[in-house]
Amino acid sequence: MRILVLGGDGYLGWPTALHLSACGHSVAVADNFAHRRFDLELGTGSLVPIEELSTRLAAWRELTGETITPYVGDVTDYDFTYQIIADFRPDAVVHFAEQCSSPFSMIDRKHAVYTQTNNLVGTLNILYAIAQVNPDIHLVKLGSMGEYGWPNIDVEEGWLDVEHKGRKDRVLFPKQGFDFYHLSKIYDSHNIEFACRCWNLRGTDLNQGIVYGQETAQTAMDDRLATRFGYCAVFGTVVNRFVIQAAIGHPITVYGTGGQNRPLINLRDTVRCVQLACENPAVPGEYRVFNQMTESMPVIKIAETVARCWPGDAVIEKIDNPRVETENRYYNVIHTGLEKLGLEPHLLSDELICSMFDITKRYACRVRPELLRPAYNWRKAAGAGC
Amino acid sequence: MRILVLGGDGYLGWPTALHLSACGHSVAVADNFAHRRFDLELGTGSLVPIEELSTRLAAWRELTGETITPYVGDVTDYDFTYQIIADFRPDAVVHFAEQCSSPFSMIDRKHAVYTQTNNLVGTLNILYAIAQVNPDIHLVKLGSMGEYGWPNIDVEEGWLDVEHKGRKDRVLFPKQGFDFYHLSKIYDSHNIEFACRCWNLRGTDLNQGIVYGQETAQTAMDDRLATRFGYCAVFGTVVNRFVIQAAIGHPITVYGTGGQNRPLINLRDTVRCVQLACENPAVPGEYRVFNQMTESMPVIKIAETVARCWPGDAVIEKIDNPRVETENRYYNVIHTGLEKLGLEPHLLSDELICSMFDITKRYACRVRPELLRPAYNWRKAAGAGC
Repeated sequence: MRILVLGGDGYLGWPTALHLSACGHSVAVADNFAHRRFDLELGTGSLVPIEELSTRLAAWRELTGETITPYVGDVTDYDFTYQIIADFRPDAVVHFAEQCSSPFSMIDRKHAVYTQTNNLVGTLNILYAIAQVNPDIHLVKLGSMGEYGWPNIDVEEGWLDVEHKGRKDRVLFPKQGFDFYHLSKIYDSHNIEFACRCWNLRGTDLNQGIVYGQETAQTAMDDRLATRFGYCAVFGTVVNRFVIQAAIGHPITVYGTGGQNRPLINLRDTVRCVQLACENPAVPGEYRVFNQMTESMPVIKIAETVARCWPGDAVIEKIDNPRVETENRYYNVIHTGLEKLGLEPHLLSDELICSMFDITKRYACRVRPELLRPAYNWRKAAGAGC
Repeated sequence: MRILVLGGDGYLGWPTALHLSACGHSVAVADNFAHRRFDLELGTGSLVPIEELSTRLAAWRELTGETITPYVGDVTDYDFTYQIIADFRPDAVVHFAEQCSSPFSMIDRKHAVYTQTNNLVGTLNILYAIAQVNPDIHLVKLGSMGEYGWPNIDVEEGWLDVEHKGRKDRVLFPKQGFDFYHLSKIYDSHNIEFACRCWNLRGTDLNQGIVYGQETAQTAMDDRLATRFGYCAVFGTVVNRFVIQAAIGHPITVYGTGGQNRPLINLRDTVRCVQLACENPAVPGEYRVFNQMTESMPVIKIAETVARCWPGDAVIEKIDNPRVETENRYYNVIHTGLEKLGLEPHLLSDELICSMFDITKRYACRVRPELLRPAYNWRKAAGAGC
């Protein structure tokens, strides 16, 4: 298959592109390097050094003989989006090209507006470009488990069979966002569902849990193929950040009681899920949702697991929760769709955590500890006059 | 009370401002004159001549002695939004300042992106400005009944008590958009609900039906106070357009079978509902939803009612439905909230329709009949390369 990975220079987009290439697909990547610019703005970065895209692609060609086509530009620029889809003629477009951090979207008004307009306009442009170039192209979009919030009923895969006052319907699962980033993903999902219904497009929404891990079979081949390993309070996802905190002797910072459940998925499963979605496309007019996660766990349990695995002393510190969320809520998610297509989950294991300690120790000197703690209080609407 | 009406130069914003002023409130209006610019772009216009805002305000002062403060600017410009709220210090902000037409949002990619970004950014800016200036200010936002779509269960007022697999929750009513405009209103609703929860704001979402009528007690006082009366396929709402078609001897154009139900509300009730919402504010942290409609009716029945009222011959013509919707769906809406606050509905009556014929006959020479028929097919994703 011909597969275009948008956001193909990112934490997940890059290993996904490599995995799809290793599976024998013809792959192109597009990126505007937004995350590298966020790092410059916020002083954040990857714990593991990452090469520039051109070096990454050259290394992949050198090691495997496979060529991945790069496109540099921004999907919010419609000329660019239309041209790359018309030029590459993909069978599937995998869309990672969004601002992907909840804390980033809650910094202040500018970051909230940027997150929502960037994500919304990019996805709208992709939908229009597919509809105009070839409506048969399958859109595989990275959504988020956070779109559902934490309802007191089971979270189904995108749709809910509801009975109310003796009448029945199958409706889009009711959603509730807990930050402007996850709200933007809700809006993307609605736009995609409408475009599938209106223009007969094929759409798969992968409502992904929180990804952890740093290596896949491909990225482990060579240091030049490493993917980003965020550790700060803005871009470091929960397991990764806890592993790094333990390994550098910093307290593991749990927000509030830590009773809040988090849906999780291993990076190796992420790349496999995207492959399965591409190779088993939605039918024309279908808006299909998979809950792309393999387990869920309260934050405190994640912290305790990491602390137990660390051979030295590890302190868990409960700090004020900067987020606006109710802790200790019921949380049960149905996630059978991808397993039916062949996913064999890698669950969070002591072994995996220990392998992440090894990576962390190698690059511990690159950590800036002041970035590990949250700097923004979500209860405050910041940014007067700007 | 001090009430700031955003979009106060529009079809609904203007009569609302007059009504609130007549009720004894201190009123300010803000507008960027976007609708007047859309008219220049599309060659559309109001059947009834409308004065410029400054003339309207001078006439109101001359007739009543009351002053309405004007602010000219765009709510997508945060400096403007923050400044007017800081300057006027309202108790309530009534937010009509959005692109308000479904067909407009479906013209092509540019109009879809404009509609969604304009509406989303404006509302985000208003939320941030309220949170920063004074979180006690009550936001009264015009939503739309179209946010709910046409589910096979009763449409409740914003929230749904759901039971699923033996567990219960109260969730945001599941929504489904049928065009990019109504999708934008869904996104506003989510952002407002989150802001109320996160920053303890007071929010009322008025999910309004399709407004018909052209006169209120105040606009009828003087020709200079007239409000817009759209008649084209882009900006003319269904009852108004049918009345005008009948009165100029043009066929009444029903889309498809006409079996699709439409929620309706009289303009006189719109202004009263906004008053009731302002005078009975939501409490801090509350996101409150009212279904601001008084009846619903299939399009074919609206057409037949108009045809029956017209004293001459009136032809109903069924044309291909440019919209993507399922006709003849179940439709039942709960709308008791505003009636509990004191709304006494004016239902669609022969008398009201006849009064609209009188206005139409007076200005019939201003109609451009070619604008009455839909020019855009929603099934086509228009705008390649632009």
